[in-house]
Amino acid sequence: MIRVTVWNEFVHEREYEGIRKIYPEGIHSCIGNFLGNQADITVKCATLDMPEHGLTEEILQDTDVLIWWSHAKQEEVSDVVTERVRNHVLAGMGLIALHSAHFSKIMKRLLGTSMTLKWRHDDRERLWVTAPYHPIAAGIPEVIDIPQEEMYGEFFDIPKPDDVVFTGWFAGGEVFRSGCTFTRGYGKIFYFQPGHEEYPIYYMENIQKIIVNAVRWCNSKIKRTLPIECENTSSLENI
Amino acid sequence: MIRVTVWNEFVHEREYEGIRKIYPEGIHSCIGNFLGNQADITVKCATLDMPEHGLTEEILQDTDVLIWWSHAKQEEVSDVVTERVRNHVLAGMGLIALHSAHFSKIMKRLLGTSMTLKWRHDDRERLWVTAPYHPIAAGIPEVIDIPQEEMYGEFFDIPKPDDVVFTGWFAGGEVFRSGCTFTRGYGKIFYFQPGHEEYPIYYMENIQKIIVNAVRWCNSKIKRTLPIECENTSSLENI
Amino acid sequence: MIRVTVWNEFVHEREYEGIRKIYPEGIHSCIGNFLGNQADITVKCATLDMPEHGLTEEILQDTDVLIWWSHAKQEEVSDVVTERVRNHVLAGMGLIALHSAHFSKIMKRLLGTSMTLKWRHDDRERLWVTAPYHPIAAGIPEVIDIPQEEMYGEFFDIPKPDDVVFTGWFAGGEVFRSGCTFTRGYGKIFYFQPGHEEYPIYYMENIQKIIVNAVRWCNSKIKRTLPIECENTSSLENI
Amino acid sequence: MIRVTVWNEFVHEREYEGIRKIYPEGIHSCIGNFLGNQADITVKCATLDMPEHGLTEEILQDTDVLIWWSHAKQEEVSDVVTERVRNHVLAGMGLIALHSAHFSKIMKRLLGTSMTLKWRHDDRERLWVTAPYHPIAAGIPEVIDIPQEEMYGEFFDIPKPDDVVFTGWFAGGEVFRSGCTFTRGYGKIFYFQPGHEEYPIYYMENIQKIIVNAVRWCNSKIKRTLPIECENTSSLENI
Repeated sequence: MIRVTVWNEFVHEREYEGIRKIYPEGIHSCIGNFLGNQADITVKCATLDMPEHGLTEEILQDTDVLIWWSHAKQEEVSDVVTERVRNHVLAGMGLIALHSAHFSKIMKRLLGTSMTLKWRHDDRERLWVTAPYHPIAAGIPEVIDIPQEEMYGEFFDIPKPDDVVFTGWFAGGEVFRSGCTFTRGYGKIFYFQPGHEEYPIYYMENIQKIIVNAVRWCNSKIKRTLPIECENTSSLENI
Repeated sequence: MIRVTVWNEFVHEREYEGIRKIYPEGIHSCIGNFLGNQADITVKCATLDMPEHGLTEEILQDTDVLIWWSHAKQEEVSDVVTERVRNHVLAGMGLIALHSAHFSKIMKRLLGTSMTLKWRHDDRERLWVTAPYHPIAAGIPEVIDIPQEEMYGEFFDIPKPDDVVFTGWFAGGEVFRSGCTFTRGYGKIFYFQPGHEEYPIYYMENIQKIIVNAVRWCNSKIKRTLPIECENTSSLENI
Repeated sequence: MIRVTVWNEFVHEREYEGIRKIYPEGIHSCIGNFLGNQADITVKCATLDMPEHGLTEEILQDTDVLIWWSHAKQEEVSDVVTERVRNHVLAGMGLIALHSAHFSKIMKRLLGTSMTLKWRHDDRERLWVTAPYHPIAAGIPEVIDIPQEEMYGEFFDIPKPDDVVFTGWFAGGEVFRSGCTFTRGYGKIFYFQPGHEEYPIYYMENIQKIIVNAVRWCNSKIKRTLPIECENTSSLENI
Repeated sequence: MIRVTVWNEFVHEREYEGIRKIYPEGIHSCIGNFLGNQADITVKCATLDMPEHGLTEEILQDTDVLIWWSHAKQEEVSDVVTERVRNHVLAGMGLIALHSAHFSKIMKRLLGTSMTLKWRHDDRERLWVTAPYHPIAAGIPEVIDIPQEEMYGEFFDIPKPDDVVFTGWFAGGEVFRSGCTFTRGYGKIFYFQPGHEEYPIYYMENIQKIIVNAVRWCNSKIKRTLPIECENTSSLENI
C-alpha cells in the first residue's frame, strides 16, 4: 500500500461561495476521494489549521507520498514544519506540488530558485505530453483540453527538471512547463500546474489519472534514516 | 573586467599556527592574488568578521563572481546576508564554492539538498577531468595529482549537476564529484572540492588555472534586476 | 575569428518560384550575409551539389561552426560525408541545425533517436525564451512573433537537451521545443526550429540575432585531434 | 512476466581455455541462469552465429529487455539487425549493455558519440553507488569490491547520462562512470561496465542483483508501434 497524505491550506473553499460549490469539503477531500478508490493507495488528509498543520513527525513517518496544495497562506506554514517535510523528502518521501504550490515554502526550500512565473486569470489550456515514455504519462492522451484554467507562463524560474512530462499551451499565447519531475536526495518530486481553485479541474478523469500515476511514481522503495549527516570514514586501502 | 569578490570566513588561518604558515594573510588573499594577476579580473576580499560579513548590497551589486570559502563558522553567517547573496546569484552573479563550502548556508539554500558526504583527513587525490569539453577544463591536464588532501567521498547529496567537470580519486579507496556546475535562476555555480586548509593546494598552478577558468565561466553577461517577482500579464491573443 | 561554414541543400530555392523570390541566392547566402556582417565571423558556403557536398576534410578542418539547412534531399547526403562531419563535431566543431534539418542524416546520427515530430503548413508561431540565462538568448525579447511559419509540434523524439532555450507556441494549438542545445563529444549542437523556406524568416532581426548568438556559443576553443580512439594506458599506481 | 533476451557474441568462451573454464556455456548462459531464477523474468538467449544473430523481428517483438555482451566481433553484427534493435529500443524495449558493449554498433548508433575510453588489463575495482535513490541500486551496498577487473577509465565519451548510478574506482588510479542510464525514444538503456570475460564477475551476488534490478527498471510498460514516423496533423484551433 502507498500511504498518501493530502495536504491543503483549505482557505479559499471556506471563504468563497463559488469555490465552496466546486469543492464543498475542500480540494483535499476531492483528491483524497479519487486516490482512495485505488486499491494500492491509502489516504490521510491534513490542513493548515491543524496543530503543526497536521504534519507531525509521526504522520510524516507514515507517509510515502505527500500531496501539497497551497496559495493564499504560503507564508503561514511554519519553518519548523517546512524543514521537517524537507527532511522527509530528502530521506525518500515523494512530494507532489499542485498548481500555486510552486510558490510554497517547501518547494522554494527544496528547489532553491525564485519559482516565479507569469500568470493571468480566465484562460484555457491544452496540456501536451512531452515525455510520453514517462510513467506519469502512462495511459494519458497526447493532449488534454482544460476548458477553464488560470494561465501560468514562462519564464518559470525552476532548476532544470529531470523530465518535463507535460507542457501547457494557453489560448492567450503562452507556454509553460506544466508537469516537471525533480529528484532531491532520495525523494522524487512532481510539480503539476493544473488545478486553479475556481474551476473543477481535479474532477477531470485524465487529471485524476495523472495524479494517480504521479503517486505511484513518487513512491520510492528506497529510503534512508534521519538525520542525514556527513560521515567520517576510515580508509579502505593502505594510503 | 570581471569583478570578483573573494569571501573567506578567515578563522582557521588565525587560530592554527600550521595553517597560518601556509596562508599567512588568509586563503582569500592567496586566491585574490592569483586572480588579480589576470588582466581581465579585479578582486575585492571580504570576511566573516566585517560588518554584514563584508557583503553589503552595494558590494554585491559590484560583484560579477563571488568566491566562497567557509568551514568552521558556517552557521554564523547571517540569514539576511545569505538571502541577499542568494538573490544576487538568482539574478546572475556567479558563485564558486570551495571545499567545505559545500556545507555553507548559501549552498544549502540554493541547492536544497543535505549536501552531506563522507570525509577523512590525510589522504591524497587524483583529480580527473570528466568533462574535457567544458570551459573550466580548458588547458588543464587530464589528471592532476594533489599529494595531500582531505578525502571527500560519495554519496555526495547534491541535485544532479549540469556537468561533472572533475571527478576525484582518493588513495584510500573513494571517488567524488569534485568539480560540479549548476545553474540557478540566471546564476552559474561551480562547486570545487580541492582546498583543505592544512595543505598549500591553492598555490598549485593547475588548481589556480581551474579557478581562473571558473571565474570566466561563472561570469554571466545576462543579468536581471531584483526583486524577482511573479508577473500578472495581459493576453497576447483573443482568448 | 570564428570560421563558419553555411551548408544548404539548395534545392527548393531553384525549384519553386515563390521560394526563389524570398531567397534568390539560396538560404545559405541570406544566412552567410548577416553572419558575414559580424566583425568576429568569417563565412564560407557549401551546397549539396558540390563535390563531396563541399564538405571536404580540408574545409571541415577550417570550420569552427557548421550551419546546416536541409529538407528535400536528406537521404542524398553521402554516408562518408555524414561520418566526416560527425567526427568533426565530436572533436569540437559546433553544429547549428536549422528547421527541417532535425531530420538530416547528421542529426539522426549524432543524436540517435527517430527525430520525429508533428507538422502542418500555414500556422504562426510565438517563440518564447525558456532559458533566459543562456548565451543564445542574450539580447532577445522574451517572446518573438513569427507571423507565418510551418507548425512543428510535440512529441519531438530527441534525447534530453542540455537546455531548451526556446519553446514554440503555435496558433493551431501545439507546443514545440524550438531551440535545443546538446553536447556530443567536444562539440556543441544547437537545433533551431524556425525557418520554413516559404517565409522570409531568416530576414527577421531577432532570428538573425539568435543565429549569431548560437554561432558564438557553439564555437568551442577546446578541440581534440582525430581520429578519436580508445587508449591502452599504464597504471599510475602500484596496483 | 518480463521477457528478457540475453545476447552474447559467444566468441571468447569458445576460443580461450581460461575463459571457457569460467563460462563453459557462455556468458549468456550464466546471465540467463540467474535471471531465470527470478519469478517475474523469463529468458531467451541469442548469439552472433545464429541466423540474423538470433534477433529476428519476431524475437524482438517478444522481448521487453535485451541484454548485450560483445567485444571481439563488434563490427560483424549486421547493420540490418542493428537498425532493427535500435527501432525496438526507440519503441520501448529496454537495453542493458555490458562491459565492452560500450563499443557495440548498437550503443554507438543509439548514443551517437565515439564511446571511447581508457583501458588496461589486470586491475581491481571498487564500485561506488553514486545514485543510491535509483531503483537499480536498491539493496546494493554502498561499495562493491571486484577483486579482478579490467580497468576502464575516463574520459568516457558518452552523452550526459540521466543518472550515474555507479562510479568505479580502480587501484591503478582511474575513475569511471561504471553504471549509466539513458533514455532514447521510449527505451531505457543501462550501461554497466563490470564483466571482463577473464574473471568470474557475473557470478558475484551483488553484480547479479544489479543486473536483476536493471532488468526491472529497463522494462517499460509504455511502448509505441513501429515504424516511428512524422505526423502531418490538422489544426486544433482556428488559426
